[in-house]
Amino acid sequence: MKARVTVTLKNGILDPQGKAIEGALKSLGIDGIAQVRQGKVFDIELAAGADQAKAEAALKAAADKLLANTVIENYKVEVQG
Amino acid sequence: MKARVTVTLKNGILDPQGKAIEGALKSLGIDGIAQVRQGKVFDIELAAGADQAKAEAALKAAADKLLANTVIENYKVEVQG
Repeated sequence: MKARVTVTLKNGILDPQGKAIEGALKSLGIDGIAQVRQGKVFDIELAAGADQAKAEAALKAAADKLLANTVIENYKVEVQG
Repeated sequence: MKARVTVTLKNGILDPQGKAIEGALKSLGIDGIAQVRQGKVFDIELAAGADQAKAEAALKAAADKLLANTVIENYKVEVQG
């Protein structure tokens, strides 16, 4: 069973890395981009035989404790079958 | 118009960061996780009035040139209406 946890900055939190990427894209001549915000993605392989509800709870705990800083970041957990 | 570019390591490429997260989750007592691989996600806001096909082409160019290292990374571009 596979899962993906996506961690993104909350709205209103400054993202200097995203701003830098925006600038770099402009200087590379790629137009039409208004804003870039960078986040992280964790592709997680779950141990065989785990049940979906339990896995989701464990991943939420993982995101709260380690993967995301919930003061400034949002996270989304998706378990794929 | 919004888009998301997800950059992940290719299969077979070592991911020491993912390994470290795996170890940290185990030591936090979160069980049932077999493997973690970390990637990046870019949430991109496109300039108003951009058409979808053009935007997708521009984002592919951006990923090839800047956002991903295509020697070791795969990327996926999703344009949301």
